[in-house]
Amino acid sequence: METWPLSHAARAKLMHVSSATLSTALFKRGLRNTFIAGATLLNPNAPRMVGEAFTLRYIPAREDLDRLDVFEDREHPQRKAVETIPVGHVMVIDSRGDARAASAGGILVTRMMMRGAAGIVTDGGLRDTPDMRRMNFPVYCRAPSAPTNLIHHHAVDINVPIGCGGVAVYPGDVVVGDAEGVIVIPAHLAAEIAEEALQMTAFEDFVMERVVAGAGTFGLYPPSEETRQRFAHWRQERGR
Amino acid sequence: METWPLSHAARAKLMHVSSATLSTALFKRGLRNTFIAGATLLNPNAPRMVGEAFTLRYIPAREDLDRLDVFEDREHPQRKAVETIPVGHVMVIDSRGDARAASAGGILVTRMMMRGAAGIVTDGGLRDTPDMRRMNFPVYCRAPSAPTNLIHHHAVDINVPIGCGGVAVYPGDVVVGDAEGVIVIPAHLAAEIAEEALQMTAFEDFVMERVVAGAGTFGLYPPSEETRQRFAHWRQERGR
Amino acid sequence: METWPLSHAARAKLMHVSSATLSTALFKRGLRNTFIAGATLLNPNAPRMVGEAFTLRYIPAREDLDRLDVFEDREHPQRKAVETIPVGHVMVIDSRGDARAASAGGILVTRMMMRGAAGIVTDGGLRDTPDMRRMNFPVYCRAPSAPTNLIHHHAVDINVPIGCGGVAVYPGDVVVGDAEGVIVIPAHLAAEIAEEALQMTAFEDFVMERVVAGAGTFGLYPPSEETRQRFAHWRQERGR
Amino acid sequence: METWPLSHAARAKLMHVSSATLSTALFKRGLRNTFIAGATLLNPNAPRMVGEAFTLRYIPAREDLDRLDVFEDREHPQRKAVETIPVGHVMVIDSRGDARAASAGGILVTRMMMRGAAGIVTDGGLRDTPDMRRMNFPVYCRAPSAPTNLIHHHAVDINVPIGCGGVAVYPGDVVVGDAEGVIVIPAHLAAEIAEEALQMTAFEDFVMERVVAGAGTFGLYPPSEETRQRFAHWRQERGR
Amino acid sequence: METWPLSHAARAKLMHVSSATLSTALFKRGLRNTFIAGATLLNPNAPRMVGEAFTLRYIPAREDLDRLDVFEDREHPQRKAVETIPVGHVMVIDSRGDARAASAGGILVTRMMMRGAAGIVTDGGLRDTPDMRRMNFPVYCRAPSAPTNLIHHHAVDINVPIGCGGVAVYPGDVVVGDAEGVIVIPAHLAAEIAEEALQMTAFEDFVMERVVAGAGTFGLYPPSEETRQRFAHWRQERGR
Amino acid sequence: METWPLSHAARAKLMHVSSATLSTALFKRGLRNTFIAGATLLNPNAPRMVGEAFTLRYIPAREDLDRLDVFEDREHPQRKAVETIPVGHVMVIDSRGDARAASAGGILVTRMMMRGAAGIVTDGGLRDTPDMRRMNFPVYCRAPSAPTNLIHHHAVDINVPIGCGGVAVYPGDVVVGDAEGVIVIPAHLAAEIAEEALQMTAFEDFVMERVVAGAGTFGLYPPSEETRQRFAHWRQERGR
Repeated sequence: METWPLSHAARAKLMHVSSATLSTALFKRGLRNTFIAGATLLNPNAPRMVGEAFTLRYIPAREDLDRLDVFEDREHPQRKAVETIPVGHVMVIDSRGDARAASAGGILVTRMMMRGAAGIVTDGGLRDTPDMRRMNFPVYCRAPSAPTNLIHHHAVDINVPIGCGGVAVYPGDVVVGDAEGVIVIPAHLAAEIAEEALQMTAFEDFVMERVVAGAGTFGLYPPSEETRQRFAHWRQERGR
Repeated sequence: METWPLSHAARAKLMHVSSATLSTALFKRGLRNTFIAGATLLNPNAPRMVGEAFTLRYIPAREDLDRLDVFEDREHPQRKAVETIPVGHVMVIDSRGDARAASAGGILVTRMMMRGAAGIVTDGGLRDTPDMRRMNFPVYCRAPSAPTNLIHHHAVDINVPIGCGGVAVYPGDVVVGDAEGVIVIPAHLAAEIAEEALQMTAFEDFVMERVVAGAGTFGLYPPSEETRQRFAHWRQERGR
Repeated sequence: METWPLSHAARAKLMHVSSATLSTALFKRGLRNTFIAGATLLNPNAPRMVGEAFTLRYIPAREDLDRLDVFEDREHPQRKAVETIPVGHVMVIDSRGDARAASAGGILVTRMMMRGAAGIVTDGGLRDTPDMRRMNFPVYCRAPSAPTNLIHHHAVDINVPIGCGGVAVYPGDVVVGDAEGVIVIPAHLAAEIAEEALQMTAFEDFVMERVVAGAGTFGLYPPSEETRQRFAHWRQERGR
Repeated sequence: METWPLSHAARAKLMHVSSATLSTALFKRGLRNTFIAGATLLNPNAPRMVGEAFTLRYIPAREDLDRLDVFEDREHPQRKAVETIPVGHVMVIDSRGDARAASAGGILVTRMMMRGAAGIVTDGGLRDTPDMRRMNFPVYCRAPSAPTNLIHHHAVDINVPIGCGGVAVYPGDVVVGDAEGVIVIPAHLAAEIAEEALQMTAFEDFVMERVVAGAGTFGLYPPSEETRQRFAHWRQERGR
Repeated sequence: METWPLSHAARAKLMHVSSATLSTALFKRGLRNTFIAGATLLNPNAPRMVGEAFTLRYIPAREDLDRLDVFEDREHPQRKAVETIPVGHVMVIDSRGDARAASAGGILVTRMMMRGAAGIVTDGGLRDTPDMRRMNFPVYCRAPSAPTNLIHHHAVDINVPIGCGGVAVYPGDVVVGDAEGVIVIPAHLAAEIAEEALQMTAFEDFVMERVVAGAGTFGLYPPSEETRQRFAHWRQERGR
Repeated sequence: METWPLSHAARAKLMHVSSATLSTALFKRGLRNTFIAGATLLNPNAPRMVGEAFTLRYIPAREDLDRLDVFEDREHPQRKAVETIPVGHVMVIDSRGDARAASAGGILVTRMMMRGAAGIVTDGGLRDTPDMRRMNFPVYCRAPSAPTNLIHHHAVDINVPIGCGGVAVYPGDVVVGDAEGVIVIPAHLAAEIAEEALQMTAFEDFVMERVVAGAGTFGLYPPSEETRQRFAHWRQERGR
């Protein structure tokens, strides 16, 4: 399997584009299902999240297997994932959309932040969310959920393809989150999508400036030929 | 079809009554289903929303019809609705409760605000919600949703009767929103409901004042004859 | 039926432990279903909620029975519950998870606060939530809901065993809420769970301090023998 | 509380009217919420169900209370209900709409049939449904569910007002089921609703006969004056 | 708007292909969302349904507008639709997926059958379903539902584009139903899809015959060159 | 990892016990979550299903990866699974509970039947269900679903631990299905659960016989000492 390392340039661009703009850029390539449903950012003031997906897969718990002593084992996939996620990566957890128990809690999330992870996404719950709401770190979940992981989840695999919030996530895909939610970009498209979304963002900023100034949307959005010229001029002026 | 223009007086009264009080006033007339389910105000500090309904109806998208170039057409119902909604009206969108894609985004919502709309309500998603949370404009949706409109929605009609969040909305109905949610008042009842709700609000303020002062609710809420007299006195004192 | 009064000591301990820690302590005793699903704290800055459960049971409304004049009756269970909930107790309402109408509104909630209740929990809706978000009082619900109680609810029983958010709640159970959500502790376990959770909290604080300082989780969480000794030392130093 | 015994005459009439017709008769009196949602008849060839409601209330199970040995206790509400339901009554179970575990199984349902019960309704699951599909006895549930009752349910009350499938059910209400589903008639209305529904059924049969013969619905359904006369004639001919 | 009358030839072909095969044929053209979710055939032995869509749109009911006397009006959209649906057409009803009340009942469905309609589809409920299960006529709904239409639905439009079960339905689209469910074919594609699906069906029948005879799927499904030749031979033999 | 081959004796016993009885036997060992939610048997007259789990894991589809030509590849996990499932095994598919597209269709299911599989279970949809309803083979799904697999599913793994209908399924677990639904037995418990369930079934048959004869449940179910003796006698008589 080829790998598509995320360049510094692409990462930097993705830091300045919205999940909405990325969704449109991906839709232009026929990708309709790229937004992780129901993943809410706990601290709306956290930094933008950009990084390669590092995945963790849960299946339903079984009472005889999922007891508190399993964490003694350093090979336990949840704990091993926390201690091996590479710098700059985003932990994406397939919790089957089940928020009845936490996918992780404050200590593990803090540890991942300390290790240089770029963020955390689960389609399940998280516990210790009052603390996470104050962390300067992007963490996304479906709902706060105090019950400990083992009550409903069994960690089974690290870094395999998963589903999260109804979206396919392959290890190495580029995961971008803002205060609206989380977009998954197939790894091989990340560079071109980053560039295209940056261009689109310039245009959207131009349009918004004009709308705030009172302009109508006809001929502006989408642009007429005249608008295209005004935009070209605007870009020159702003150096964008 | 008769029309029931919303008078300045009624509008002013509706600015000072809560969605809860309006719900009770409508319930007294046998109307039980007037609160749009799941519509959350994005900026809790936005001004109160009061205005006549101007509606937009979506059906599910079809891949061959709903492509990005449809917006070239000035007759496209979504774009036409944005450019024709009358001043003081509320755009109410029937998105079939489907928040998998946005009903609208930041540019269109800003344009409607600039054109003098009184607010926006959808039972689906909106994109660019981080920006909307900072706008001084009342915008209600079920959930933030980055995917572009066309992925799941096809705009088909302007200003026809619709359902929104399980409630019937007829063009011209009076739509009132506070930080709790959105109430739909049949047009012909708006004036009398506005007046009645204003009276009820005075009484509720009186009751709350007494409860905060330590009074019990028996004989107060609902009022005994003695309470009615105290309330009459209170109104006189306060000039309400 | 035995009663298990909540001691001042236990109450004080429970003020300093999280719902997440309590969930784990209860799980150790085989109790997996103790977190009330979907109950959100309206004012995240409200004080911690700790108190014995005082319950109210709703069934679906029936149009001929549930009219506005029922509140004239001082024996109406909702109103009687508000005026009889003992000091330090938490009102827990079984609304069948139905948030289409409010379980209670601002006046009744304020009255319960004034009477010394420790908090309010419903698995349904509440109305006047914009006001409740500013009250210095812990109030939990599934969603804001303007429609008046009688549209969908009929109050039928006070202080019987109920379900709330999928959890069994017996009168006298100890109900603890933080900004994550609400945990129900069987009355007879409250004292020992309070103590155990307090001990666990000390350990978790120690672990978090070390993780923030850069330590890995292996050998720390769960603790190796060496970690146990460091923790013992840490407790001595901190006087915990 | 007054009681309204169901007369033989009313019972006989209710045996010959459909749940659809009953719903309309109740709607004419302002009762909109009388059909138990999601209750499916297991054996579509079972006899019509008509009887007074005898209720059983469940709350969520708790692991330390709900163990298999509870059934040793003859006062256990589920077992007591089975052995005390009066002849001709319908057991209506409030399972909170939760079909993850059974509300009852084949042995208990058979015992109730043997004791002369008129039928069983739960808004949860039932186990041993393959057997029940062959019993000549009307049994309604949301879904087949093999897990034993105690895994999710705790029986707590017999013959109190409950909700079932979103409908209020008071002990003694008249419960009627056909192959479409289950209607709850307030006890005091049962006699007049039975009579009215019987009259409506005669008219519907007349209408259907005419429609099958090729007649249009205009002037027929609802009836013109001419149609009323033809119907009067038809009744005379048929002796209905 | 162009119209695409459904030819006799296309109709005949569609009588012999399954909804599964049609779904694949449409997927090959990029149409992914063509199967009406949750529409169940009431009588599994009813004839195959093929016809052009004739639509009816419902919005939520409002108590003051939706009273039983509305049916006196021959212009009432539900009743007018029943009396005007053209021969060979399928009535497709947008009930917003709401099965709490019936979209129609036995008399209206029978009348449509008598008038030559090809079938009925709603994403809501139907009443009198026990009768419909015995009718030799294809009727699809989400669930049996005794409550009369007006309790939750208000008929508002005839033959406009609608959503039904999450699928866009335009008047004149070709609607095909078998015992699995209902597929919507855009009108302009119906002829070519009918032909293609017929060819695919021949191939699937050939494959199934071979699989039943013990063949493996590799090289068979999808076919190798050798399989293609065997299939050509098979067609010749069978005259298909 | 140890393996626990299912003996002929255990398999034979499991052929004669119900999913309800198995659920109780597993609950006695602390296993509460063993019933696959929402999996319905398509042909209620199909033989009982007993076999070891052979699993297939799906994640959400991605438009650029999941095209019809993927099936050319003999390593495609869905197709490979069909051609490699061992005799006597049950194919259990993790479809994330998503029935919007089929997990498999008639040709693949027939092929697995021909290869000697013991049955099929998915928590998603199946297509060609009208044919499957006539096959003498146990097939379980959530709902009929015409859309082809690739529209929503991407097959990714064979024979790994999965979740199906909310239950953990490990390869080799013993999967038993009757007309009520599907139970998953951990492999190492299968032999003892089979024996225990067989004993329980004898007792339940005895109880049912007595209940049908008019006996009450007190002292019978659960049994008094006297009942135990009668049961011992009954077993002797029946040779069970």
